[in-house]
Order: sequence, then structure tokens, then C-alpha cells
Amino acid sequence: MALVSTVRGAQLARLLGQWHALPGRRRSPDYAALAGAVRGLLTDGRLALGVRLPAERELAQALAISRTTVSAAYRELRASGHLTSRRGAGSWTTLPGGHRVGSHGLWAPLDDLDGIDLGSAAMPAPAELPAAAEEAVADLSRYLSGAGYHPAGLPDLRDAVAAGFTRRGLPTSAEQIMITSGVQHALDLVLRLLVPAGSPVLVETPTYPNALASLAARRARIATHGLGRAGWDAELLLGAVRQTRPRLAYLIPEFHNPTGHLMPVGLRERLPAAVHSAGTDLVADESFVDLALDGVAPPPPLASYDRHSRVLTIGGMSKPYWGGLRIGWVRAAAPVVQRLAAVRVGMDMSSPVLDQLVAVRLLERADTVVPARRAQLVRQRDALVAALRAELPEWRFAVPRGGMSLWAELDGPVSSALARAAEDLGVRLAPGPRFGADGTLERFLRLPFALPPEDLAEAVRRLAAVRYDLDRVPRPRWSEPAMIA
Amino acid sequence: MALVSTVRGAQLARLLGQWHALPGRRRSPDYAALAGAVRGLLTDGRLALGVRLPAERELAQALAISRTTVSAAYRELRASGHLTSRRGAGSWTTLPGGHRVGSHGLWAPLDDLDGIDLGSAAMPAPAELPAAAEEAVADLSRYLSGAGYHPAGLPDLRDAVAAGFTRRGLPTSAEQIMITSGVQHALDLVLRLLVPAGSPVLVETPTYPNALASLAARRARIATHGLGRAGWDAELLLGAVRQTRPRLAYLIPEFHNPTGHLMPVGLRERLPAAVHSAGTDLVADESFVDLALDGVAPPPPLASYDRHSRVLTIGGMSKPYWGGLRIGWVRAAAPVVQRLAAVRVGMDMSSPVLDQLVAVRLLERADTVVPARRAQLVRQRDALVAALRAELPEWRFAVPRGGMSLWAELDGPVSSALARAAEDLGVRLAPGPRFGADGTLERFLRLPFALPPEDLAEAVRRLAAVRYDLDRVPRPRWSEPAMIA
Repeated sequence: MALVSTVRGAQLARLLGQWHALPGRRRSPDYAALAGAVRGLLTDGRLALGVRLPAERELAQALAISRTTVSAAYRELRASGHLTSRRGAGSWTTLPGGHRVGSHGLWAPLDDLDGIDLGSAAMPAPAELPAAAEEAVADLSRYLSGAGYHPAGLPDLRDAVAAGFTRRGLPTSAEQIMITSGVQHALDLVLRLLVPAGSPVLVETPTYPNALASLAARRARIATHGLGRAGWDAELLLGAVRQTRPRLAYLIPEFHNPTGHLMPVGLRERLPAAVHSAGTDLVADESFVDLALDGVAPPPPLASYDRHSRVLTIGGMSKPYWGGLRIGWVRAAAPVVQRLAAVRVGMDMSSPVLDQLVAVRLLERADTVVPARRAQLVRQRDALVAALRAELPEWRFAVPRGGMSLWAELDGPVSSALARAAEDLGVRLAPGPRFGADGTLERFLRLPFALPPEDLAEAVRRLAAVRYDLDRVPRPRWSEPAMIA
Repeated sequence: MALVSTVRGAQLARLLGQWHALPGRRRSPDYAALAGAVRGLLTDGRLALGVRLPAERELAQALAISRTTVSAAYRELRASGHLTSRRGAGSWTTLPGGHRVGSHGLWAPLDDLDGIDLGSAAMPAPAELPAAAEEAVADLSRYLSGAGYHPAGLPDLRDAVAAGFTRRGLPTSAEQIMITSGVQHALDLVLRLLVPAGSPVLVETPTYPNALASLAARRARIATHGLGRAGWDAELLLGAVRQTRPRLAYLIPEFHNPTGHLMPVGLRERLPAAVHSAGTDLVADESFVDLALDGVAPPPPLASYDRHSRVLTIGGMSKPYWGGLRIGWVRAAAPVVQRLAAVRVGMDMSSPVLDQLVAVRLLERADTVVPARRAQLVRQRDALVAALRAELPEWRFAVPRGGMSLWAELDGPVSSALARAAEDLGVRLAPGPRFGADGTLERFLRLPFALPPEDLAEAVRRLAAVRYDLDRVPRPRWSEPAMIA
């Protein structure tokens, strides 16, 4: 495998940010802090595998530290299996053996089953899944005589999804629905059709990290609209659309991930016309729309204010039902759905028949599954909120009225450092900078409430211990490299 | 939807090729022949939807015909729903209502269920599938308490796939296996990791059309190695690798699609070292490796001659089992598998849990499923061969010893015209040019033997009727446009 991209000294310095702000810093030497910070970037996916790091001299210059320190840090990274060097070819990032890609792109040790995973906003399957799966197997016989390829999706599922939009007040026909393998896949497919490489794309900051990954794969030029404590600033957002005229805007109007904000009606009314004037297509990610809490009623979908087929709505089963199903969809104008289906054939052909049948059977059970999810999320959210107020009263946050996560403002720019230290106590975190396009957001941390109340309380206790015990020297727990080539 | 790519006059002229060679040409006027040829390009996916056609004057010049003829052809295409025009914005391709993307990227009318589909080399599900699915539902309970994301695949399935390679004489561990959503997805994922936009890639010609679609999405610069009647020319292929030094080579060594050739041991021994010297990664597509016929024993996998982790092997369940499952895999060095898993998170997260469990249970039944498939394919192939020899004795072909299709050399450069005419008789074909990167191959036609013997015989009878009845005027059967926006 020869293909290696290179990160320049200045880029890595920007990614490393306040690398010496690591808790435990008072005791650990500079080289160990630097190595720890690089390891953190690797673990949370901000630094990819197989990337060539800058030469020692170059990084030393960019960080304004001595080359000896960089040498020692690289040596430590080699010893822990995070860096491989070959004379003349440089040093590139690797992972020690016994690690895997975890959910949502974070790297996880294989043996961390005892840990508490706050990296992922995803829940176990609902109790109704096995029955739905059994019925789906019975339904399967109708499809077995065909080749099994349905690039736009099974008609039954397209009908069911269209009916869901219609019930929400947005009349929709099956021809406007394209079934995908999850919401991430829906976004990636839409980008492939609509965003030529290198085009400008507007996103919120913070935003969903895997959306940023998909945009990076298309080399999109990212423009951002910063969400404040109250959510979107309508004038600023509409101004950004007018001024940057992006090819596409990617927004999460319902229980925004990670902040939990819900876009108000007033902005929904104005956005579709504004993007149309700017020649921009708008992708509205409705992953969390079913998960309103406290009886909140979300406003009409963004697409219901759209007069020019500019809004593509993406959604799916992952959050209200189960991520292990991999069922998502795009709602768009029928001709766009046809083009998406044609593009998809060159990507992954179509979604599995059986999973689509399971989805049909689960959607029939929406009235049981979704309220139970909401009740469970309310309990978990309240437990998280109570624990944070008790253990980390300096952290500020709005209590989310939907979705699965809370966006906390910390008492310092220590999110990455906290994530690295927490790992030693068996708590996995996705630090704030993962949710930004520009490596900032070190003062923020996403805390999902997808786990049982007792796990959330325990996780917060451990975070508080880490936060206050700044003197503790973090000891990496990486196992020996054991790759098989 | 504003994004429209444009096809220039010279490009469209090249795609249209011998458009006036349409059967029925003697009676139909030029404008109708031109409209029919454009419709043919749209139907078989060589011309995408939403593409802006050249201005009438430009196309007239490129084809050296009168502008009146182009005007009339565009008018007919608008009337049949294949073109939409707006003053000032030009004319772009659309499809009439009631059409869908069929298997393998061909457009199919929704109501063609009576037709005989020779466009797709895919079979119905094996009889063992329902039992495997029932067992998989029972297995599911072990996974329901997790979030359901396994970017590299379920350990059980990775084990099973690795064991399959090991049994074929290529020792493989589960860490070297990445599970994907089908073979097409495996290729698309590998390209995303290894092929920067615009890189040179070497493919065979003819080759698998959806591989070309995936390469086009990455704007790869395509270099080709032409397969002759005897298959690969070792010296020419190795020379092409040395001279073009492509980033990646995509080859189908086992029962090549569409020609059916099997790469000999001699070339397998030399290729991996040659690509290594050229800095090239080699993707070996093993889609058909299980489908050896007539007792042929395929030589060892290409990867078994690889000393430098240069060969990535892709394969899957679609051909020997069922395409409706969407299970494929990549075999590569363990660190590459980790990188693929990380890339995948930004693409579609992971494969569905249930389908992976079905795949495990089906692979346990390989000794029943695969021999039955082979026996069925032998019967079908022999029926196709007999029908061709009886009805179209001028067509030349080698009898394939594996796979699912036969590559026929026709008695003239009429493949696209034949496909358009055959559609009126209810036979869908994928014409030769779909299998080439450069729009040639009009003398060739892929004929899959994935259908029952009587259907194949009937299809060949209809093809023979079309071939000899050059005077018949084709009458398009397109239904009225009925798009819902």
C-alpha cells in the first residue's frame, strides 16, 4: 500500500491546538504530552490512519519547541504502535493491534467492553425487533424469485416512508422516496449526485462529524454557520447563504446533533426561498425528528416551505429504531430520486431486501416503539442532567427537548485532554473539536444520553474525577502491536 | 435542482456511434433514428439523467446533419418524455413516468414483468435462503443490546469469509477481512481509500459496467487492456502496467465478466510483482470464483502470489447466493482493512447485522447451494449455446467454463441497435458498448445465462427475428410522462 497523504507541520499544529493543556501536564514531560495529543487525534478520527506526519524538524518549527522533544514524542508513538517509520519514506500513522473502528468513527480497543461509551448517540434495538424480523422472513418469499436488486427501494417501504411524511403534513408519493442504507449513506449519495469535487458547502458548527467526513471525501470547501446558545441566528444564516452561494447547505433542523436545538418556524419559512435564490440545494437531516421529548411538537418539515424542489430531506431508522438495521431514505422530487437511484448503482447497487422488509414491519409498530423510546430518553436525559448539576456544576448547557445528546460548555478548553484522560477511567468521549470543521470547540463536549441512567451517573462521576484531578499522569493502556499483514 | 452537467456535441456524437445503423432504418426517417439512438443511450445508462444536451446547432455540426433533423429529434424526445427544455436553460435528459432503475443500472419500464431480462447476470435466491434467514433471526438476539454498528463487519462473518480463503489455499485471518454491502460497494470503498480523484486506473476492456461507473465517479483516467479471444495477453498487460504505472488496476481474473475468461497461472505468478514495481495496487474481483462449471478447477487466487500486500481481493455473495442480500468483502492487509473501516464510517457506517447473520448461515450451506447453482448454470448455458448455434449461427463465441454470461461477437456493429429493437419484443439487453470505457464494442453482446432454459431459447428466437428483420420499424412503447415533483 503505497498511497499516503501527508499532513504538513502547520496543519498538525492547528489540529493539536492546546496540546500542552493535557490534565496531568504538570508532571508529564513535553514529549509525552505531545505523543498523547497525537494519539488522541488518531483515536477520535481527526487524524486518519496511514497519514505521513511532518518531519521532526518541520513539526518542531511549527510548534516552536525543540526538535529533541518531537524526536522523543515520535519515538514514544513508535513504541506504542501509533507510528511506523521507514528510512527515506518518513513516518506514518498506524494503530496498535487489538483495535477496531468503533461506532461513529472513533477507534476503540477490542477489549473495552467494560467501559462506558459516551462516544456514540445510539441505543440498543427495541423489544419489537425480533417479531418484526420474523414477519419479514415470512414476507421474503415474495421476493426470492427475483434478482433482488431494487436501487430505489422496495415499493412497500417507499410507500410506508411516504405515508409518514404525509401524516406529518407534507404530502409525499412513493416516487419521491429513495431508500438508502442509513442516513449517512443518504447524505453520501446526495453529495455524490449534487456536489462536484471542491464545491462550497455550508454546514452548521458544531455539526455531525460523519457528515464532515463525507464532505471531506468530496473535498468540499466548508463554510460554517456558528450555532449560538439560542441556536441559529436567522439573519446571519440567511446572509451566509446569500454571500457564499454554496452549492449545498447541510442542516439538522430537528434536535440538532450535537446541540439539541429545534429550528423555529420563522426561519423554516424563509430558508427555502433564500437557498433557491442563491442556487443552493439544501439537505435537511431529520435523523432525530421522531425523538421530541417533553411533549414538544416539532414545526412542519423544512420541505413543506419549499416551492422549488430545493430541499432534500434525509432521515432513517437508526435513531428511533436501531442502527444495526441500516435503513435510511431521501425525500426529493421524483426526477431527482431517479437520478439518485442511477448514481447508486455505481456505488452499492441497492439495499438488502430482508432489512427493508424488517423496516416495513417496524414502521407498522411506530406507535409502540417511538413513545417507549421517548420515555426512556427522558429518564436518561434527566439522570444525565442531575449528575452534571451535582458533579460538574461549572459546566453550562441547555436541557435538550429532543434527540439523544446534550452539548455542554466546559469550564476550560480541555475537551480533547479530558477525552484522553477519561479513556483511562473507561469512559469514551467524542471531544468537541470532532464536531467542528476547523478544530476549535475545545470548550465543548457532547454527552449523549443513550445509556441507562446508572451508567450515565457513573460516567459523570468519573469525568468529574478526571476534571479535578489535574495532577494524575495518564497512562496509555495500548496493547502490543499484533498486526497481521 | 440546478446542477446539470453538459455533454458536448462531439462527446454525444461519439456516444451515438453508428446511430443510423438502427434496424428498421430503411423506413424510419433520420430524426426518428437519432431520437431512438439517444433514447437507447439513456435506457442503458451511458447517458445519465439530468444531463444538458448540446444545442441543436452544435449537435448538427458534430453529426454533419441538418439542424432541422436535430430539431425534429429533440421534439420527438420531448414528446416521449425523454427531454425537458426551458427557454434560456437548454434541454436536459429525463425519463418518462413509470420507469425505474433496474438491476445493473439499466432503466426498465415498471410494467415489463412479462419481458425477458438479459440485461442482468443475476439469479433468484437459492432454496436454502428462508431457512438461513430464520436461523439468523434467532441469532440476532445476541446483538440487540448493542448499537448495531460494526464498520469492519461481524466477527462471525469475517471468520467465515477468512476460512473460505484459507480453504482455497490462501491463509487468511479475520483481521484481513472487511465486510461490505456487496462487491460493488467493496470496489467503491477501495477506490475511495486508494484512488485520489483523477488518478490513472487500468481496467480490462470489456469490463464490468458498474466498475466503470464507480471509476467515473472518482474521475479516474482510464487506461485499458483489451481482452482478445484467448483472454489476457500477458506481455501486453505487464507492459501496460509498466508503462502507464496506474495508481490501481481493476481485473476480473475468474470467469471474467463479461467474457468468461479464466486467468492462467503463468500470468498470476507475474502480475503481483509487476504491479508492485509500478507502484500500483491491484484489485482482483472474484465475484464469480465459486461458479466454475464443467469441473474446471480455478488456479490459486492472485493474492497468493502477492509478496507486498499489493493485491486487494474483493468478492461476495451476490452471484453464487443472492444479490438481494448485499453482502460482499475485501481481503487485504490488516492495516488496510482498518483504514477501509475508518473510511466507511463516512460513507455508510456499516452493514446491517441481520444480513450478515444470514450470510453466515448461508455460507455454512455452501456445499449444498453452490453445486446446485453450478448444475443449474450448466443447463442454462447449454440451452443458450444450443439456441445461438441454431438461430444465429453467424455469431461467434467461446463456450464459457464458469460465471454467468457469454460474450458473443455479432455479425456486424449493431449491438446498440439490436438492444433498442429487442426491447420492442420484450427482451432487455445490455449492449456491448456498456462494457467498454470508450464506447466501442458495438460488435459484441453479453448474453447472461441466469434465466431458465426455455426463457433463454425464447429470447434468442426473438433476437434472431430482430436481427434478420431489418425492415421492421421499431415503435417506442414509452408511456406518458407522469412525474411528481
